[in-house]
Amino acid sequence: MNQYQAFRVELADKVANVVINRPEKINAMNAAFWTEIIDIFKWIDETDDVRVVVLSGAGAHFSSGIDLQLLAQVGGELGKDVGRNAEKLRRKILSLQASFNAVDNCRKPVIAAIQGYCLGGAIDLISACDMRYSTSDAQFSIKEIDMGMAADVGTLQRLPRIIGDGMMRELAFTGRTINGEEARSIGLVNRSYADQQALQDGVQDLARQIAEKSPLAIRGTKEMIRYMRDHRVDDGLEYIATWNAAMLQAADLRVAVTAHMTKQKPDFAD
Amino acid sequence: MNQYQAFRVELADKVANVVINRPEKINAMNAAFWTEIIDIFKWIDETDDVRVVVLSGAGAHFSSGIDLQLLAQVGGELGKDVGRNAEKLRRKILSLQASFNAVDNCRKPVIAAIQGYCLGGAIDLISACDMRYSTSDAQFSIKEIDMGMAADVGTLQRLPRIIGDGMMRELAFTGRTINGEEARSIGLVNRSYADQQALQDGVQDLARQIAEKSPLAIRGTKEMIRYMRDHRVDDGLEYIATWNAAMLQAADLRVAVTAHMTKQKPDFAD
Amino acid sequence: MNQYQAFRVELADKVANVVINRPEKINAMNAAFWTEIIDIFKWIDETDDVRVVVLSGAGAHFSSGIDLQLLAQVGGELGKDVGRNAEKLRRKILSLQASFNAVDNCRKPVIAAIQGYCLGGAIDLISACDMRYSTSDAQFSIKEIDMGMAADVGTLQRLPRIIGDGMMRELAFTGRTINGEEARSIGLVNRSYADQQALQDGVQDLARQIAEKSPLAIRGTKEMIRYMRDHRVDDGLEYIATWNAAMLQAADLRVAVTAHMTKQKPDFAD
Amino acid sequence: MNQYQAFRVELADKVANVVINRPEKINAMNAAFWTEIIDIFKWIDETDDVRVVVLSGAGAHFSSGIDLQLLAQVGGELGKDVGRNAEKLRRKILSLQASFNAVDNCRKPVIAAIQGYCLGGAIDLISACDMRYSTSDAQFSIKEIDMGMAADVGTLQRLPRIIGDGMMRELAFTGRTINGEEARSIGLVNRSYADQQALQDGVQDLARQIAEKSPLAIRGTKEMIRYMRDHRVDDGLEYIATWNAAMLQAADLRVAVTAHMTKQKPDFAD
Amino acid sequence: MNQYQAFRVELADKVANVVINRPEKINAMNAAFWTEIIDIFKWIDETDDVRVVVLSGAGAHFSSGIDLQLLAQVGGELGKDVGRNAEKLRRKILSLQASFNAVDNCRKPVIAAIQGYCLGGAIDLISACDMRYSTSDAQFSIKEIDMGMAADVGTLQRLPRIIGDGMMRELAFTGRTINGEEARSIGLVNRSYADQQALQDGVQDLARQIAEKSPLAIRGTKEMIRYMRDHRVDDGLEYIATWNAAMLQAADLRVAVTAHMTKQKPDFAD
Amino acid sequence: MNQYQAFRVELADKVANVVINRPEKINAMNAAFWTEIIDIFKWIDETDDVRVVVLSGAGAHFSSGIDLQLLAQVGGELGKDVGRNAEKLRRKILSLQASFNAVDNCRKPVIAAIQGYCLGGAIDLISACDMRYSTSDAQFSIKEIDMGMAADVGTLQRLPRIIGDGMMRELAFTGRTINGEEARSIGLVNRSYADQQALQDGVQDLARQIAEKSPLAIRGTKEMIRYMRDHRVDDGLEYIATWNAAMLQAADLRVAVTAHMTKQKPDFAD
Repeated sequence: MNQYQAFRVELADKVANVVINRPEKINAMNAAFWTEIIDIFKWIDETDDVRVVVLSGAGAHFSSGIDLQLLAQVGGELGKDVGRNAEKLRRKILSLQASFNAVDNCRKPVIAAIQGYCLGGAIDLISACDMRYSTSDAQFSIKEIDMGMAADVGTLQRLPRIIGDGMMRELAFTGRTINGEEARSIGLVNRSYADQQALQDGVQDLARQIAEKSPLAIRGTKEMIRYMRDHRVDDGLEYIATWNAAMLQAADLRVAVTAHMTKQKPDFAD
Repeated sequence: MNQYQAFRVELADKVANVVINRPEKINAMNAAFWTEIIDIFKWIDETDDVRVVVLSGAGAHFSSGIDLQLLAQVGGELGKDVGRNAEKLRRKILSLQASFNAVDNCRKPVIAAIQGYCLGGAIDLISACDMRYSTSDAQFSIKEIDMGMAADVGTLQRLPRIIGDGMMRELAFTGRTINGEEARSIGLVNRSYADQQALQDGVQDLARQIAEKSPLAIRGTKEMIRYMRDHRVDDGLEYIATWNAAMLQAADLRVAVTAHMTKQKPDFAD
Repeated sequence: MNQYQAFRVELADKVANVVINRPEKINAMNAAFWTEIIDIFKWIDETDDVRVVVLSGAGAHFSSGIDLQLLAQVGGELGKDVGRNAEKLRRKILSLQASFNAVDNCRKPVIAAIQGYCLGGAIDLISACDMRYSTSDAQFSIKEIDMGMAADVGTLQRLPRIIGDGMMRELAFTGRTINGEEARSIGLVNRSYADQQALQDGVQDLARQIAEKSPLAIRGTKEMIRYMRDHRVDDGLEYIATWNAAMLQAADLRVAVTAHMTKQKPDFAD
Repeated sequence: MNQYQAFRVELADKVANVVINRPEKINAMNAAFWTEIIDIFKWIDETDDVRVVVLSGAGAHFSSGIDLQLLAQVGGELGKDVGRNAEKLRRKILSLQASFNAVDNCRKPVIAAIQGYCLGGAIDLISACDMRYSTSDAQFSIKEIDMGMAADVGTLQRLPRIIGDGMMRELAFTGRTINGEEARSIGLVNRSYADQQALQDGVQDLARQIAEKSPLAIRGTKEMIRYMRDHRVDDGLEYIATWNAAMLQAADLRVAVTAHMTKQKPDFAD
Repeated sequence: MNQYQAFRVELADKVANVVINRPEKINAMNAAFWTEIIDIFKWIDETDDVRVVVLSGAGAHFSSGIDLQLLAQVGGELGKDVGRNAEKLRRKILSLQASFNAVDNCRKPVIAAIQGYCLGGAIDLISACDMRYSTSDAQFSIKEIDMGMAADVGTLQRLPRIIGDGMMRELAFTGRTINGEEARSIGLVNRSYADQQALQDGVQDLARQIAEKSPLAIRGTKEMIRYMRDHRVDDGLEYIATWNAAMLQAADLRVAVTAHMTKQKPDFAD
Repeated sequence: MNQYQAFRVELADKVANVVINRPEKINAMNAAFWTEIIDIFKWIDETDDVRVVVLSGAGAHFSSGIDLQLLAQVGGELGKDVGRNAEKLRRKILSLQASFNAVDNCRKPVIAAIQGYCLGGAIDLISACDMRYSTSDAQFSIKEIDMGMAADVGTLQRLPRIIGDGMMRELAFTGRTINGEEARSIGLVNRSYADQQALQDGVQDLARQIAEKSPLAIRGTKEMIRYMRDHRVDDGLEYIATWNAAMLQAADLRVAVTAHMTKQKPDFAD
């Protein structure tokens, strides 16, 4: 595990805690943030000992979104030719998207724990996580519309699959702030907690539960749900059949059945 | 702005109010309705001064759906050859669908404000809008099933993306009437209001909010959400990157940032 | 109508009641279950007199899912070569999936009525039904994760279209049990009833309502909603136009209009 | 049939001859061209008496592509804001594409007859036709690359389905001119003729053959091939089954069988 | 192996020879044909000893297509209600398609050997095979157009992937007869032979070559090519990776490498 | 430009020559090959001075495919649990695929120049290039079938789009060797040359031609053709319209028009 400028990462009991760690800047996403998050999720993917990830923000807020200085810097790199600027911007956006794709494509479940502000780019980020939990007074806003731009690192692509289409458009067009309780009622978060401590207790408990399951089964399950976001039911059925053709020959099914018979807790290999 | 037989259209403060205006016929959709709606949305699309649309019905009801006289007239045009009738009917249905596609494809957000009856074809229509708001005692019903036919101008295609699949089937199979409050609880409308006045106040306020945003950003946002209804997440990411490659070179981002710095309201060009 | 080992099937007033009938085994899905269900739904598809199906479980529970003896037997058939085992397993899974595809592809609406346990494979089964209703104390769990495997007969493919993506992942990763009331709040069931009697009254009443509609219109409606689960809005519009080009030449539209005019109940042919 | 500035249109024996008629400008595609072609194909679609279309160019050449004056004019309409220019250009391109979509979507088969130059936009145009025939010394070139731009009215979208992927890229990257004989060998044209007269004789004869077939069968066949360009085999099978469910009830099948039995030529209604 | 009315089936050296066996009727496809072909390919799929299939026609011709008596019989079953007729026809067509889907979905390669007439339904059939070989004077024609109908059992869906789009439309619109040599030049057959004996020698030799390969590798290869007909490159790459994750653990890779090292012929298990 | 173990890379006149440089091992693809190719194409993508790539093999042969030692090494890393082996193999295959995806996704055109052997993995590689050219006696074979496995790094995914479906299956099932001339006749290579010198002259000349075009136009063209391999015509039209909305504001169009007017060679910026 490396040291990071924008994050603090800890591993305990097979749960990796990834904390955005710039509380003095409301965890704004600076240049270090965008590159380090790729390294972190590469490490998570390759480390068998990590089975679940909890993503949170240090301090009173989850994150205020992209750092405006970073935006300004990108603007400063543009030249005179509109076409070449367009190519540069297109590749820059694709590269920022790649940072959140690393979260989305992570083989292990990623749980977002949200308190305080969760604005702009932070919505893009939590849309790429598997599940979201918040305090009841957390504040969510698709802030990009107030920057005069359409959100371009994932909110508009992933959020419509999570919340209803009608409310999606209202939030994206107005940038209206909703709290944790309303977020729960539209399916943006699975549960809202009274305060930050209850939130942390809740997600850590959830993370531990998932960490005890067969890691092969969890990966297969995540891959299938991810796949269904974009594919047909018949393709999905063919895919899981091909996947499980190998996986059902693994030890895990036997371990689970034995544990079930002997009424003991199963112990799955990494 | 032209005069219309089936509609009343007004433009104020960048908000176009499009009112179905046959209250004595419960705003039933007659021949004029189907052609005029295309002209109106063409005008909206091409008029820079229009930024948002509010679609409503004059009188006590939103609309009772397609005018039965129109159906009878289509029936009267059929001949003896089943195959040639089929081709005629197919093209007629495609042509009716085109009227509501004009709403769906409109570059500006379209808000539906619904009171009283919203039956049959009216459900097809509001499914093609961006967002829906109603009085709490509005009455919604997928009436086509009681005409002995499957709805064919958009309800069955667009509504499953808006409300849950399970409730979708119940409503489509039974034609059961639900009120505004139940409509809200299943995501069919975003909010239900106590009465028609409160509804109008609510949607006009919402429309004004959206009209103040960057029109380029609103169009990009709408295009992306529309696109995601039918496309993969990875395709969507590539599309917004290509789109914003040009749009981030617009003045709007700069206007927004400046306004943000100076804590003033941004003023975006049409 | 044949006699079955794992089911009891009755037909009355155009409603087929299909009851899983191994209450002493908590309606676990044994070998007979998987083959008989295909025969039953083939019969339903081909019998004009059946217009709606109610699927339920005899006794105190809906079903505990796949019979573990069946799993053990499949395991016993495997040999030494991993590749040939993989091919055998793949085909076995595809064959189990085919049993639930028969439910999903049935031309008539299928209503699931659920009390008590609804575990593992039983979730896969109800995901393939059109609509779900339960008692408020029914217990739902995606049990496969605790067997050390990813669910592979339909839950992961069909359920994300029915409930929200975020809650889907929580339930699939943890196997957490939810009751009928929570199931209703996330859209898994359309309504939860106080007890088993109220549930049966409710679904039989619903079934009778649907049985009175035009069977052609019901089939078209079901086909379109099924189609939209996997297709684009524009493809769906073209498909219904082609479908209705023939169906609007049927008698049902005329029967319905006449009934509407004379304020009588329409009587549609099978 | 109207009079046109850029075209000459004639109808004889159910074959519509659409001739680009600006030979003094090498049939360059000017403003009139782009709007008139939509009107012409709308007329073709709606006129039962037209069963096949032959598209050709007056004089020594088929067409040199888009008129440079038109391009210059579009450039002149651009302002200072890159974003608003982008939106204007995007809509302009979509509107030019719509002109060739009208050819692609035409319900009747469209045969292109090509002699002399067929450059740039002319390739986009013939890619939207059903079939292509040329003189052996015709000259084809994807000229856009030499204008410093990627072709944007259909060549890059439709041609890869017609000729091989490898040769497609060579021609698009280099703008290399190929003659009618090489065009035939890679599938760009179905046949190349010795000279313009032989070409005209050939395509007129082909057009007459097609005009004698059942128009319903021809439309169904065209729709299915068009559909398969973009859809799955299983979707295509379902679509033709739904289509023919109505069409096999038409008189044409009976007319054809009777003609076959009596060894006479069938005479199909329009 | 059963006895069949419309076929003769033989198995030798792991090659199944399936011969359409009604030479006195030019191998027209009667009722027995359509049901027996499903049984035969089910048997092929389930019989490990069959590794390759050669499909041919007894006598001087491959097949003249669907038996007109069968068509007449279907017509005779139609009633008065256009809608109910449409549903009956739709299901009939889907059921005929299922017969050729059984060929397309067969896990073993299917080689078509064609001499004499190959008309109408016979083109649909060979389009569902893996590869096609013919005598140079074989005669191919998409005959359905001359029956006043669009082909509906697979030609229009599968053939455009095999031959070029331009020639596809010419043949489908005109029903023009092409011989084996032209068929080869457009990719409809892989090779054309001087006479029927040379054809049989050629395909039997090819079949034996394929029968010697690893059957797991052949099945994987066929599945991947079939899959790519309808899917994206990225999906295909993910699918083969999942498939080979199990298959590379099979003995066949080891057997092949050992054989390669010792320069002996590998002997793969069924 | 770095030094590589498995490659030699040179840049001259905006053309990058990438040469597989292990002639003593028939350019077999070893571990260094698979990682270095990613670095090389990353450098190409990011280096504005490179406009075209020529990929070839040092010595008498292009490449014999994957190094068997590498395969053996992967086998050696497998453990006892089939499921965990499957996951390891799946990721290994995905990682090998990523090496050739780097070629496929390269923004600049990649030309393959092939002499001598082009076997197994080498076919996967050239399938990921834009265009292929060979000597007439080059030898192509989909060798994987003789290793007892289905090709899994791209041949089965990309080649069916390049050559016909029928011949694709024959070559994949049999592993039959074809020479450069037959390769040309089925579209696998665009042209075959008498010998290696003529081949090099030909491709270098082609590369120089492409290098003189507008690099923005070349990239747009390549992106669109790549996109159409997997997308619908209507999606492709929308995509190019969005792309060109920015690109037509670049200087290149003006440079080209000016050059055209003055009959001089255009000089495009990198």
